[in-house]
Order: sequence, then structure tokens, then C-alpha cells
Amino acid sequence: MSAPLSAVASELGTSKAAARIRAAAIEVFAAKGYGATTTREIAASLDLSPGAVYPHYKTKESLLFAVSLEGHDAALAAVTQADRPTDSPTERLAATVTAYVRWHAHNHAVARVVQHELRSLSREHFTVIVDIRRATSRVFMRIVEAGEAAGEFRTIDVEAVTLAITSLGVDVSRWFPSNAYSDPDVLAARYVELALRMVGATT
Amino acid sequence: MSAPLSAVASELGTSKAAARIRAAAIEVFAAKGYGATTTREIAASLDLSPGAVYPHYKTKESLLFAVSLEGHDAALAAVTQADRPTDSPTERLAATVTAYVRWHAHNHAVARVVQHELRSLSREHFTVIVDIRRATSRVFMRIVEAGEAAGEFRTIDVEAVTLAITSLGVDVSRWFPSNAYSDPDVLAARYVELALRMVGATT
Repeated sequence: MSAPLSAVASELGTSKAAARIRAAAIEVFAAKGYGATTTREIAASLDLSPGAVYPHYKTKESLLFAVSLEGHDAALAAVTQADRPTDSPTERLAATVTAYVRWHAHNHAVARVVQHELRSLSREHFTVIVDIRRATSRVFMRIVEAGEAAGEFRTIDVEAVTLAITSLGVDVSRWFPSNAYSDPDVLAARYVELALRMVGATT
Repeated sequence: MSAPLSAVASELGTSKAAARIRAAAIEVFAAKGYGATTTREIAASLDLSPGAVYPHYKTKESLLFAVSLEGHDAALAAVTQADRPTDSPTERLAATVTAYVRWHAHNHAVARVVQHELRSLSREHFTVIVDIRRATSRVFMRIVEAGEAAGEFRTIDVEAVTLAITSLGVDVSRWFPSNAYSDPDVLAARYVELALRMVGATT
């Protein structure tokens, strides 16, 4: 992440009141779309006056940024915490793909808002989010490279397979749940098998 | 498709004027989001009065449906036309994945609108679109099954791999172009390799 943690925490709003406002914002953004939502409506959904939101979030965009930051930080944390660098690359890929897919399935509402409204962020805020996204991709890329180096993977193109793995994970938030897949663990197990095939895992 | 073709053509609007309105709608929906857009703004972007849109599209939702129908029909047509059932399953998968990825890269603006605003369609219109989406998935599923039957593929789970292939294609419209991938043909070639690995192609 490029932003110092103190700045991130301040943007995020650490109080319980701020967390309630973010949760309400996600619901209203998801239902109506960011562009059609007003801060007033978000406040009203909590029986608050618009003035009660202002001390926490001065603008609708700062609220979107706080929600995006929280969502992206959580997805990155899920992947990072699942990755144990002393395990084999095959085990590491399985653990991180599982964490990433499960996160997007469990948090599909917030993930959908965050993914689809990225372009509504200010340039400065967008840059912070892009840094977190790159850090997440980098976790997968390092594992694929480690698998190559260890002779466990026979990748055709490290960049393309990293893109495909992250894209599959992100896109879960668009369609989840479906008739065929409504259990995050079942889906994650299938996607681990497909990811291992994509990297040409030999074990 | 469940709707008779005549009904579809009438919803779509076959005149040049209707086509111009759909193109304008895609731009405004993409820029502001469907929820924040008014039919008045779409008309204004063409220097038309709202009354000039009305004979073609009575409501904003009917305009979204026409755009969705056109986009989904075109994506299905791209895949269907690329599929030559006399070719080997490996060749067929390569040709259809190429067509699907290229379509979503070339048409990322319309695809993004259509994918993200599906939930804004009426139930009746949503059902029509879901049928087209299922027909598209079915093309890939039939090819995977043919590959299994011919002994060319060793799939773990036909449903999961079909989901992954369509998901990768659809998600192209979210992120395309990126720094690494801005040529639809290069991207399609990479995704064909990954798709063949996912189905366990032996050739």
C-alpha cells in the first residue's frame, strides 16, 4: 500500500458510527447504484440526519473510498493470511485461491459495489485502491514464480495466469450465488483444481 | 431464446433512429450508471427532445432491455458462428473461446453496462436475457462434453469449467484494456491456452 496506515485509518473511520454508515452505504449503493444515491438517502436508511454523516464522511465519494478501502484491504488480508511461504507452491496456490474465492463469495455484495464503482473514485483515491489490487495480484504471481522455480509448475505465461486467477475470483462477486454454486467451499475447491491445471501443476 | 423473433425485433427497434438512441444510451449508462440516468439526458445527448425517444422506447427500462438484448445476441452469435461442429473439440474450444474473449474486449463498453445493470431489468425481460446467457454457456458445455466423449479432454467437472470459461470472458469487459493486455487477439490466444489446460486437453 502506498498510503501511510494512519491516513488509511482516518479515511476509513474507526468509530462504530462510521462502520454503521459504511454498511448502510453498501446496501444503498448495491440497490440503486452509486450515481443514483445521495448521502441523504444513506443517512435516512439509518434514521439519521444528513448532518450526522458529515463528521464521518464529508462527501459521497469519501464514503465510497472508505467502503472500497475496507473491501480491498480485507480481500488482500484474506489472501496474505492464507499464504504460508514455507509450504510448497502447490499448497500455497491452493490456500490462496481458496481464500480469494471464498472472500468474494461471502462478501459478494460489498465486492460488487467496490468493483463496479471504481471509476467513480477520485484520481488520488483510485491510486490507493490500485496499489492494493496490485499487491493482491503480486501474492499470486510470486507463488506462480516460486512454483516455476521449484519445478512444480509449468506455466505458459505467468502474467496471463495471474490475471486469469484474479479475474475468476473477482467475477465470483458478479454472479454468486447461482443455481449450481451456492456453497463457497465447493466453488473454491473447483477453482483450486482449475487454477492448478492453468499453472501446469505436476503434483 | 424463449421470445419469438418478431417480438425481439420489435423490442430492439430496427430503425436507424432507434439504433442511434441505443448507442447514446450505452454511453450515458456507462458514464453515469443506469440508476442516475434519465431518458431526457439520453435524448439531450443526441440533441433530441424526450418526445423523440418515446415512439422508439417508452421507458428507460425498455431501452436498457433493447441494449442488453442486442449485446447478448451479438455475443451469442459471435460464439455460434465461430463454432464448426465438424472440427475437433480442441479446435472448436479454441475458436469459440477466441470469439468470446475478442467480443468482450472489442465491446467492453456495452458489455460492462449490460453485465452490471442486469438486475435493473423487469422480471420478464430478465428471463429473456437469462435464456440467451444459458444458450451461450451451452455452446461451451457441449464442446467440453464432445471433447470428453472423444477422449480429447479430461475434465474434472464440466459445469465448473464451463462456468470458469464464460466467467473469464465476461470479466474481460470489466478490466479491458490493461497495461499488460490491450490487444484482443493476444489476450484471446492466452485464454485459449488456459482454457485448453482447464479441460485437460491432451493434444
